[in-house]
Amino acid sequence: MEMEMSGICGTDKHTYQGETKQYAGTPAETDTPFPIIQGHENVGIVSEITPKAAESLEFYGRPLKVGDRITMCPDVVCGQCYECKHVMGYVWCQNSECYGNSYTSAVAPHLMGGWAEQMYIRPDTFVYKVPTGLSPRVAVLAELMACTASLDKLKEFSSYAIEGFNSGDTVVVIGSGPLGLLHIAKTDMMGAGQIIATDLSEHRLAFAKRCGADITLNVSQTSPEERIAQVMELTRGRGADVVLHMANTPASFVEGIEMLKRGGMMLEMGNFADTGDVSMNIHRHICSKNIRLIGLTNHPSTGYGPALDLLQRYADRYPFEEFVSHEYALSDVDAAMQMSMSPQSLKVVMNPHLP
Amino acid sequence: MEMEMSGICGTDKHTYQGETKQYAGTPAETDTPFPIIQGHENVGIVSEITPKAAESLEFYGRPLKVGDRITMCPDVVCGQCYECKHVMGYVWCQNSECYGNSYTSAVAPHLMGGWAEQMYIRPDTFVYKVPTGLSPRVAVLAELMACTASLDKLKEFSSYAIEGFNSGDTVVVIGSGPLGLLHIAKTDMMGAGQIIATDLSEHRLAFAKRCGADITLNVSQTSPEERIAQVMELTRGRGADVVLHMANTPASFVEGIEMLKRGGMMLEMGNFADTGDVSMNIHRHICSKNIRLIGLTNHPSTGYGPALDLLQRYADRYPFEEFVSHEYALSDVDAAMQMSMSPQSLKVVMNPHLP
Amino acid sequence: MEMEMSGICGTDKHTYQGETKQYAGTPAETDTPFPIIQGHENVGIVSEITPKAAESLEFYGRPLKVGDRITMCPDVVCGQCYECKHVMGYVWCQNSECYGNSYTSAVAPHLMGGWAEQMYIRPDTFVYKVPTGLSPRVAVLAELMACTASLDKLKEFSSYAIEGFNSGDTVVVIGSGPLGLLHIAKTDMMGAGQIIATDLSEHRLAFAKRCGADITLNVSQTSPEERIAQVMELTRGRGADVVLHMANTPASFVEGIEMLKRGGMMLEMGNFADTGDVSMNIHRHICSKNIRLIGLTNHPSTGYGPALDLLQRYADRYPFEEFVSHEYALSDVDAAMQMSMSPQSLKVVMNPHLP
Amino acid sequence: MEMEMSGICGTDKHTYQGETKQYAGTPAETDTPFPIIQGHENVGIVSEITPKAAESLEFYGRPLKVGDRITMCPDVVCGQCYECKHVMGYVWCQNSECYGNSYTSAVAPHLMGGWAEQMYIRPDTFVYKVPTGLSPRVAVLAELMACTASLDKLKEFSSYAIEGFNSGDTVVVIGSGPLGLLHIAKTDMMGAGQIIATDLSEHRLAFAKRCGADITLNVSQTSPEERIAQVMELTRGRGADVVLHMANTPASFVEGIEMLKRGGMMLEMGNFADTGDVSMNIHRHICSKNIRLIGLTNHPSTGYGPALDLLQRYADRYPFEEFVSHEYALSDVDAAMQMSMSPQSLKVVMNPHLP
Repeated sequence: MEMEMSGICGTDKHTYQGETKQYAGTPAETDTPFPIIQGHENVGIVSEITPKAAESLEFYGRPLKVGDRITMCPDVVCGQCYECKHVMGYVWCQNSECYGNSYTSAVAPHLMGGWAEQMYIRPDTFVYKVPTGLSPRVAVLAELMACTASLDKLKEFSSYAIEGFNSGDTVVVIGSGPLGLLHIAKTDMMGAGQIIATDLSEHRLAFAKRCGADITLNVSQTSPEERIAQVMELTRGRGADVVLHMANTPASFVEGIEMLKRGGMMLEMGNFADTGDVSMNIHRHICSKNIRLIGLTNHPSTGYGPALDLLQRYADRYPFEEFVSHEYALSDVDAAMQMSMSPQSLKVVMNPHLP
Repeated sequence: MEMEMSGICGTDKHTYQGETKQYAGTPAETDTPFPIIQGHENVGIVSEITPKAAESLEFYGRPLKVGDRITMCPDVVCGQCYECKHVMGYVWCQNSECYGNSYTSAVAPHLMGGWAEQMYIRPDTFVYKVPTGLSPRVAVLAELMACTASLDKLKEFSSYAIEGFNSGDTVVVIGSGPLGLLHIAKTDMMGAGQIIATDLSEHRLAFAKRCGADITLNVSQTSPEERIAQVMELTRGRGADVVLHMANTPASFVEGIEMLKRGGMMLEMGNFADTGDVSMNIHRHICSKNIRLIGLTNHPSTGYGPALDLLQRYADRYPFEEFVSHEYALSDVDAAMQMSMSPQSLKVVMNPHLP
Repeated sequence: MEMEMSGICGTDKHTYQGETKQYAGTPAETDTPFPIIQGHENVGIVSEITPKAAESLEFYGRPLKVGDRITMCPDVVCGQCYECKHVMGYVWCQNSECYGNSYTSAVAPHLMGGWAEQMYIRPDTFVYKVPTGLSPRVAVLAELMACTASLDKLKEFSSYAIEGFNSGDTVVVIGSGPLGLLHIAKTDMMGAGQIIATDLSEHRLAFAKRCGADITLNVSQTSPEERIAQVMELTRGRGADVVLHMANTPASFVEGIEMLKRGGMMLEMGNFADTGDVSMNIHRHICSKNIRLIGLTNHPSTGYGPALDLLQRYADRYPFEEFVSHEYALSDVDAAMQMSMSPQSLKVVMNPHLP
Repeated sequence: MEMEMSGICGTDKHTYQGETKQYAGTPAETDTPFPIIQGHENVGIVSEITPKAAESLEFYGRPLKVGDRITMCPDVVCGQCYECKHVMGYVWCQNSECYGNSYTSAVAPHLMGGWAEQMYIRPDTFVYKVPTGLSPRVAVLAELMACTASLDKLKEFSSYAIEGFNSGDTVVVIGSGPLGLLHIAKTDMMGAGQIIATDLSEHRLAFAKRCGADITLNVSQTSPEERIAQVMELTRGRGADVVLHMANTPASFVEGIEMLKRGGMMLEMGNFADTGDVSMNIHRHICSKNIRLIGLTNHPSTGYGPALDLLQRYADRYPFEEFVSHEYALSDVDAAMQMSMSPQSLKVVMNPHLP
């Protein structure tokens, strides 16, 4: 694959800072196998392909040829473990590998990450043809958008009007980074009644409104008590129907529970890395709250097709073209990393075609 | 309540034609207790109210006063039977009564239907305050829109990607009358990927497109085989993920099953009146199809709040203001009934303020 | 109702110890309105009844007459609040009252609790006829058994083989008091594959085995680490499919999460009273665990019928007749309270017929 | 694998009678590729194994060695088609092959069916180690028992007390052949309140009682109207909560719907072969019935583990050892086929060790 664009993800920031003991989708922490080429949110053009891959590599069985734009799931699964045999779509493989993270560049075929000009794709990779007319700037969001399959997951735990996510519901999204923003847009697509977004960046909150948020709360200008009170007021004292927790901060998880109505549903996708413990009251936050809570890591391989289709269908309604806020040449990786950690940025990507 | 508008529903057409043995929400067929005042899709203004009703009549506990615009669920339930105690929201009461259908005008308080200048509201009625700014033309759709709670019901039977209704799905809506049209809009609100609508009226199909339909199939110009083939082609040979059957014709129910993918989900709300038997093949249509099928009558009392909120939130996106295609004065009820049976009409309403 | 038997529940112990600020099923804490007659797990004989109650009081519409054995849901609901209109069966009423707790004996009809010879039953009470042949000793378990509707609730959140409660699953029940023991029996009834029970009383653990537990772990003889290790070994290193947390101790809630498999389901019914905070790691215990967690208080009014039927159907299989370990005369209430707090007791009841 | 026992299934009877155009798990009808060796419900002993298969062939990753007793899923899947990627566990592969049906014996390795002394097992087969102590007579039921995963499927479509399968429910099982009988046992395991079984063989109905049926209805001695009336009487006029249709007769499917309560759930697994059309009334049987209906073919590969565990755990409670009613030597295949079609038989098997 000739690379067009490769995103910088939260994991990449940890690796860049030398925090190289990470979950690579597996229960066991592993040292990063340096040297590696980072980059796992990838979109590019088929530059060379074997006859067999041309016929059978694409996830939905569509033929591939040189010149086709493709994206890919970075996780590669074994297909043999208990999770591979029992978990539908979601990549919980006990032996999973990950492009840009767990494959070393020390041995052939070397090109196992997206911050590069060319990349090698193994035959056991989930590969998806990008719909005609979808730009690389939007297609690079496919993996993040596939994560919003979480909302279809919530629906499975729903009964009309009181449980789960139903049309007309009040939804709070805590954390308006790229993952939070796509959840705001997806929640809006799926018929939410009122969407409340929080973040510490005014820039991101303004963007949240363009993605469908009705109300925004800046966490650097309000106290948790004020935010909880505001959610209560906006819901006639009942609390939110659904809280989507998209921030990697344990304290805001508890704040989110306080915002929930009795019997409300919470999705926890934010604390994907360990940033310490938090104190909770099981009586008040869990039992008496009659909480319905789903923790969720990763995304399903079956979510890429719907993700790409929705990015195309709703191109006019949401500012998907502007999610990529900054592009950098491969030689400017240091500047790119700095920008990706700034509250002024949304999605920062590496673009090998920039000089 | 001073009446502003009252819709003509399918049931009304049967009554008008003398077909007075009907389901009034109960298992037993009953003779209509003439004289009656028809009209059960009602919106109006509170013209007089007791102190107790002012405090506690509204469904969500909001205070009511003279001058407030309200709508109502026409079904009145006993609260004591097995269904009342076990079925959440849905009005399946074994002893249910219905404004405009099962209450006679022979005895006081006489004014028990909406095709009138004033109407009496019993203390056991579900009453809903209409949001500020929502016109009577749109508020009169509340009952029909509450029926689309069916789609939140479908979600309960969903697993990601293969079962039920998921964002990105291909949905076929058979029958684009007012009920079908609101289902098209709701399906679009909830993130469908591709919506295919059928009807015999080109006028309605054009309206269906404005409600979110991507493709329309005119049943007076195509054969069932052609329509099935087209759905297959639009889904790469797999069949639709979901079929919503909104037509009162048994044959199109079987056609809908043929359009479904294996493991697809079908909602049957169309055959609310008995128009004869149809031949099916249990092996092919049910067992081998691995069908998931929900039959559904009526709508939940808990659906009116979300219905009114969504009619307001999406006022700019869908042509709700144009659903009422014709208004008639009370004296023109014959003309109104004729028009309601024409394929050129959508929702026809009685308006007592017309001269 | 002429009382036959009335159980001592955890709430009663708090009241007895002067801890009179309690949840009475409502969000607001309330002072107990002394004087009260305690006792809310009640079974007795109809001693006097109005014609109207005879016809319509029973939950399933069965006629009642003097001499019939009945039991009752202690919670009385308003039928008007948001929760009453939206939550199926479960008693979450914002204005709920409770026999034996929130009704004072200072005013007529005075007899509002079960530790008495006679009791008054209001017309808005959920009353259930006890099946012929079911003894008071077993019928007094109806409320507790109705709480095991929690397991039918779990099923709503289930997908085959990996999520929720499926036949063949390994289930851990933490806390083998009366509530835990009935959950063990119900889990066994519903086709669990392996049941692991914990408690600090060897006496209760022996009883747990008779209710269906395959393995028991005594928490006074093992460390949390040892118990977690044992669950892992019994599940080939994967962790339990389901954990039912039935102990009022926050620390064992976290221990329960550690016992769960990835994507496992936890039910929290134990911490019904506030006994302090606990420290958790949102990353490890919630997000990475891909937990499915339901907090649950109370039980559904719709659960008493199935509860009584199952107590009868499975009378030969489980030792329901021995759940009541001690009976006391009304004058021996002090001794009864002491015994109810001993690990040697199971369910302790007041019996007004004892001398 | 050295064969111990191989069952005769309904499919085998069709093949034996020359009806060789069959579904082999795929949408397309295919001619049987004679010569074949029939037999797909297989249990035997590992007689020879490659080092790689010893390590990785078993479904749950357990090592295999010569002398181990194993069973197998007869369906072999491609792992590449849309169904393989999207349907959890269930074998809906578009390109599936089947031992004893779709593999010819004309080419090597020839031994592709179970009515033989030895059988070859491909590396892409789902293989399961039989628990210690489980006899071949019981282990041969693994495939049929895996089909009862249907009941865990039903649970996904359940809300408390009114929808799906809940503990305490009245369940009707139409057709008490081996598949129906195992569903009766599984329904009993899972806490049904009342089980009603139908069949035309008094012999099978007596066996149904030993599997947990409370009431049996002989269809050769009663009319459909009588049976429907009896179900109504046994449910206080409400109808059954759940109907499991396990007979290959279209007419009894409609009868089953008539037995259902409003909002009841029906499972159709009986009409796995096409035996003609039937007339239905969509208004009465589907829409007004508020039916929840699941059609289901096949069984999940993930169901064999739980199936084997439950056959072992409940060995004392149900007469699993007697499900195999007749065993035949390989040379007596004609007599075996005749017996398998007699109402006096339950499961008939081929046993190569018989003289």
